[in-house]
Amino acid sequence: MTREPKQDRSRVTRGHLLEVTIDCLAELGWGATTVSLVAQRAGVSRGATQHHFPTREDLITAALEVMFDARMEQARREATDLPTGEGRTEAVVSRLVDYYTGTLFKAALQVWTAAAADPELRARIVPLEERFGRIAHRTAVEHFGFDDADPVAHRLVQATLDLARGLGLADVLTDDSKRRAEIVRQWAAQLDAALPRNGESAEPRSLDVAVLD
Amino acid sequence: MTREPKQDRSRVTRGHLLEVTIDCLAELGWGATTVSLVAQRAGVSRGATQHHFPTREDLITAALEVMFDARMEQARREATDLPTGEGRTEAVVSRLVDYYTGTLFKAALQVWTAAAADPELRARIVPLEERFGRIAHRTAVEHFGFDDADPVAHRLVQATLDLARGLGLADVLTDDSKRRAEIVRQWAAQLDAALPRNGESAEPRSLDVAVLD
Repeated sequence: MTREPKQDRSRVTRGHLLEVTIDCLAELGWGATTVSLVAQRAGVSRGATQHHFPTREDLITAALEVMFDARMEQARREATDLPTGEGRTEAVVSRLVDYYTGTLFKAALQVWTAAAADPELRARIVPLEERFGRIAHRTAVEHFGFDDADPVAHRLVQATLDLARGLGLADVLTDDSKRRAEIVRQWAAQLDAALPRNGESAEPRSLDVAVLD
Repeated sequence: MTREPKQDRSRVTRGHLLEVTIDCLAELGWGATTVSLVAQRAGVSRGATQHHFPTREDLITAALEVMFDARMEQARREATDLPTGEGRTEAVVSRLVDYYTGTLFKAALQVWTAAAADPELRARIVPLEERFGRIAHRTAVEHFGFDDADPVAHRLVQATLDLARGLGLADVLTDDSKRRAEIVRQWAAQLDAALPRNGESAEPRSLDVAVLD
């Protein structure tokens, strides 16, 4: 399939608008992130912007969706660098928490919070939230290398994502990175104690209480 | 000390305005929560409202502060109902998470998110956030009955508050209570395994690995 240069330009413009939207949301908040401002910051005419995204809601939901998919794709590519055996759990928790303290999370927080008080926006965001949650969970399970069919593993991966979300929220107003690093290390130790990976580590681990009975 | 009825009325009006502010924030969001709307909903004249709270920021920060203190006071009173021994950890996590999914958290989320994109508001909110974090941590430690001088206990209580914050955020757009109850149970089991309370339970617990070595 060949592409016309015009289509290429259009695709680049679209991608640029979405990136600028995420930056605007994270930096200036929901209220300030209008189609006009995004167009102006992106150096694209308002008409061309509205050709791609007729409404502000179209622009913002497309930005979240496309940038989330790009982030997950990047996470999958970078997963090859993760250590195997000891240290893997902490590395996975640490990267996960990095995502939840980045620009995309800060942008999403603006939209989630606006949606909480706006039923129409909420109706658009709820399916996105479900999709993001499902993909984030699946990706985390793969990277941890836990067995998601084990209900304890399933719940602890969910809890890890909830913890990451909470750490993301704690980083919104102040730089919380020092405290966060300690929490990540401690929680990874808990996960390793609760969910030993078969044959991956010769380290002794906490055993389930049933073994001691 | 005697009080003039007029002072009593003024105090009641003030408290009523603060409650209405929290409800407005949680239901209608930051943008809609103006002094005029709060005055109207509270059935108080705009002049009387501004006598108590000259600016919107005064009203909103006072509302968060007073309602947070009232919530913590209530938590302390209710702590006498907490089970001792087995089940205490889960009961404490469960109550903690209840606070973070209630109206006050939803109101605070609106203000935190607005402050992320507004340096002046941020400067007012950061000291509040620090104070809330300190008090919430101390209260949680007391209710769990853990030894905060133990660095593992200290970090796991922090992680529990981060988890609660993340669960609060997951509840903003949809009712997440069913999933949340499972996470709370699992998290409490992790805490009990990592932080056995001295002599509080005859139940067997996971032991630290050093004991098995």
